[in-house]
Amino acid sequence: MDYYGSHITRLVEALKSLPGVGTKSAQRMAFHIIGMPEDQVRKLSEAILDARTNVQFCKECCTITDGDICPICKSRVRNHRQIMVVENPRDLAAYEKTGRYEGVYHVLHGAISPMLGVGPNDIKLRELMQRLTDENGDLTADEVIIAMGATVEGESTAMYILRLIKTLGLPVKVTRIASGVPVGGDIENIDEVTLERALRGRTELK
Amino acid sequence: MDYYGSHITRLVEALKSLPGVGTKSAQRMAFHIIGMPEDQVRKLSEAILDARTNVQFCKECCTITDGDICPICKSRVRNHRQIMVVENPRDLAAYEKTGRYEGVYHVLHGAISPMLGVGPNDIKLRELMQRLTDENGDLTADEVIIAMGATVEGESTAMYILRLIKTLGLPVKVTRIASGVPVGGDIENIDEVTLERALRGRTELK
Repeated sequence: MDYYGSHITRLVEALKSLPGVGTKSAQRMAFHIIGMPEDQVRKLSEAILDARTNVQFCKECCTITDGDICPICKSRVRNHRQIMVVENPRDLAAYEKTGRYEGVYHVLHGAISPMLGVGPNDIKLRELMQRLTDENGDLTADEVIIAMGATVEGESTAMYILRLIKTLGLPVKVTRIASGVPVGGDIENIDEVTLERALRGRTELK
Repeated sequence: MDYYGSHITRLVEALKSLPGVGTKSAQRMAFHIIGMPEDQVRKLSEAILDARTNVQFCKECCTITDGDICPICKSRVRNHRQIMVVENPRDLAAYEKTGRYEGVYHVLHGAISPMLGVGPNDIKLRELMQRLTDENGDLTADEVIIAMGATVEGESTAMYILRLIKTLGLPVKVTRIASGVPVGGDIENIDEVTLERALRGRTELK
């Protein structure tokens, strides 16, 4: 039965389209919204539509940005010959927060996943290949760092990119971020696959 | 730093005004929204503003509804002389779902809480008192069931309503829902206060 009237019911249904929002939390949100000051509600409503309709992707690295080119791709102090391939803008932000990366990025907006039906053409792979050479066919990058998670999707995407670069015969170095024990993690709580990787990827202490 | 451009940043900030939504989940929602079909986003945006601007309260019981009077208050099969006082429309829905209550409701939209600065005038208490008598001063109800949770706020509100009815000299029966062990709960996991209440509220088996 409809206990709250059609406006609330419609709002609850609409809120349930958001990730991680079930009926209970959608109801809590809906009741919160009708108690919020009207101008704040208007702001929320507008911000949602505005973000969807005005979203723009950087013409270089495909991240979400205002305008044509993102601040990182515009920067003159970054190394534009080192390209880090990430899955989404949140991952880009995570690497930026380390403050230790001086190169630029390429945002794929997804990872190859046969399980979820995501193929190479569904992500920004063509854009990556295109930016590796300029109009004269000269190489524009020295290194492509594949910085996706150590998941099945991350690994498949990494392998796919490597093969693509090899097939095209581009003499660019392709690297993959290290996989191993996370900093501060108790060894006893880490799964075997990660431990095996950490062992395999061991480096010599000098 | 603003990694995602101003539209996303504004949306993340706006989403954070919702209950239970922090920065991380707001970001997840924002990225989900920009990937949603535009008509679905438009629907969400409109549902939010629409619910806020068109919300209406039942002129009888103060619950949220379409139109002037809610379906329960309109019903001819319900007992209009039995009024259950609840904190909010979600609690009303919870009692309705039991399918065992035949009376009507009164929704306070809050509970008295000196801690949160909610006084008797901030909730729909005046409306409750007004509906207990008709224009001739005749009593319109036989029983007021106070059905709020066994919390400090619930208890304070119950006591306040009882005193108010006594002060006005209304010969209406005031009852309070039972407090005790929840059905299916292990005794060992129940707090002492609840157990003490359950003991105090024991009833004779016949």
